Amino acid sequence: MILEEFERRVRDSFRRQAFMATLGAEIATGKPGVVEIRFPFHPSLTQQNDFVHAGPITSILDSACGYAALSVAPEGHDVLSVEFKVNLLAPAVGEEFFARAHVKRAGKTLIVCAADAFARKDSDEKLVATMLATIIAVNRDA
Amino acid sequence: MILEEFERRVRDSFRRQAFMATLGAEIATGKPGVVEIRFPFHPSLTQQNDFVHAGPITSILDSACGYAALSVAPEGHDVLSVEFKVNLLAPAVGEEFFARAHVKRAGKTLIVCAADAFARKDSDEKLVATMLATIIAVNRDA
Amino acid sequence: MILEEFERRVRDSFRRQAFMATLGAEIATGKPGVVEIRFPFHPSLTQQNDFVHAGPITSILDSACGYAALSVAPEGHDVLSVEFKVNLLAPAVGEEFFARAHVKRAGKTLIVCAADAFARKDSDEKLVATMLATIIAVNRDA
Amino acid sequence: MILEEFERRVRDSFRRQAFMATLGAEIATGKPGVVEIRFPFHPSLTQQNDFVHAGPITSILDSACGYAALSVAPEGHDVLSVEFKVNLLAPAVGEEFFARAHVKRAGKTLIVCAADAFARKDSDEKLVATMLATIIAVNRDA
Repeated sequence: MILEEFERRVRDSFRRQAFMATLGAEIATGKPGVVEIRFPFHPSLTQQNDFVHAGPITSILDSACGYAALSVAPEGHDVLSVEFKVNLLAPAVGEEFFARAHVKRAGKTLIVCAADAFARKDSDEKLVATMLATIIAVNRDA
Repeated sequence: MILEEFERRVRDSFRRQAFMATLGAEIATGKPGVVEIRFPFHPSLTQQNDFVHAGPITSILDSACGYAALSVAPEGHDVLSVEFKVNLLAPAVGEEFFARAHVKRAGKTLIVCAADAFARKDSDEKLVATMLATIIAVNRDA
Repeated sequence: MILEEFERRVRDSFRRQAFMATLGAEIATGKPGVVEIRFPFHPSLTQQNDFVHAGPITSILDSACGYAALSVAPEGHDVLSVEFKVNLLAPAVGEEFFARAHVKRAGKTLIVCAADAFARKDSDEKLVATMLATIIAVNRDA
Repeated sequence: MILEEFERRVRDSFRRQAFMATLGAEIATGKPGVVEIRFPFHPSLTQQNDFVHAGPITSILDSACGYAALSVAPEGHDVLSVEFKVNLLAPAVGEEFFARAHVKRAGKTLIVCAADAFARKDSDEKLVATMLATIIAVNRDA
């Protein structure tokens, strides 16, 4: 699919994800197979130590992997997350958090993506989590 | 730790998790090593198909595993999620969602927990996701 | 598929797995969806501490999950492991090691299995590892 | 630890891993934090389709991650695999198979490594599997 068409589809889909709005998240697409999603710090997203909860971080990692997979999925297919593993590498402390996903391998049915999540504080970026995910491409008309 | 003391600690900690309030989540403890967290359906938690996003489901699975681990952690220790894997088994459609975690093995430093998430619709309960998680016990004074 | 037919297919397939013979492994099937694979201790399977290496333990966990999935796969389909996660819970020390797998959820294309591995020493059985795995059913004629 | 000392320790440890000899595996170290393990094709390592079984591939991924972790572990510490996730990306067909691991993040107690496995056939290298692993550093005298 051409890049403009992909970007339009991603933005349309992302806008319909109410939970991404709940997180205050925004999406940026680059070359096919690479997607970035970010949200600013907000107290409503924290756990008991005032770090951001693993949930919002996992959510943008998962959605970034999903859209990266979508960019390489066959025409007329949607994508669904099958499973993912997350390693939490450092406390999610910062002003902004972003997940960057890329496609590791695209098969006909299954797409494997990897993603890293970073916390930005002042001008520092710190790796806070990493995901390895399996996504399935599903025929929209099936 | 005795059960009343554990329940008090869990409720105190859970109350300080702003993100659990954002999800509308509540916790129930049972015997040591078993924890349940639930939230009602809310449109703010959905993805593009109006199913609940994998993020909130993963969040209660993760927190349920964390509190299950806390119930068997040594005196004076807090717990942190090291990593988890989630399989998404069915669309998260229903009126209420709950995660039930139990301790699979408790070592001195690391605690491995398993958790299932269910969607409740009318009186049916459907398995929608399952997690296998590693948690570390950290000395609160270290 | 009827049980005798399943057992025959499993034994035929298992016999063709040269690596299972290398491990000295044997398979036992029970009710559909549950499979057990075991091997006796052998020095050729150890790591630097004389425990059995994680590799052989993971291998029987993976194969047990695969055959459990096969028992519920649609007629005319083979199965392939997509991915798995293993937690190593205790040193693999003992006279015999066995993995017991069951189907957690069977979809049309993907089957999710869980398996535990145990070490037997004298008459004690100790949980040494646990796996959560995703398997794909593939049409044999496709 | 200095590089020569690390290489010596890795080779000593690797030599004591009987299971690596069973696979016909060899190790190569490079800069600290990067390790490669390889084995040639052998019929004793195959599954029912004559591909190499996921077990040997996982075994060299796991051992490569362990030695990568060892290269950054504190003085006087050994390492143990806590858990890993493997995605199987393509059939393991070829003349030689190798796993290349690097350290993703090294904490005081836990070390997270990523590794890719490749099949070499003629002069082609194909990605066949990828691992994300958690390793714990354990004081040798504790």
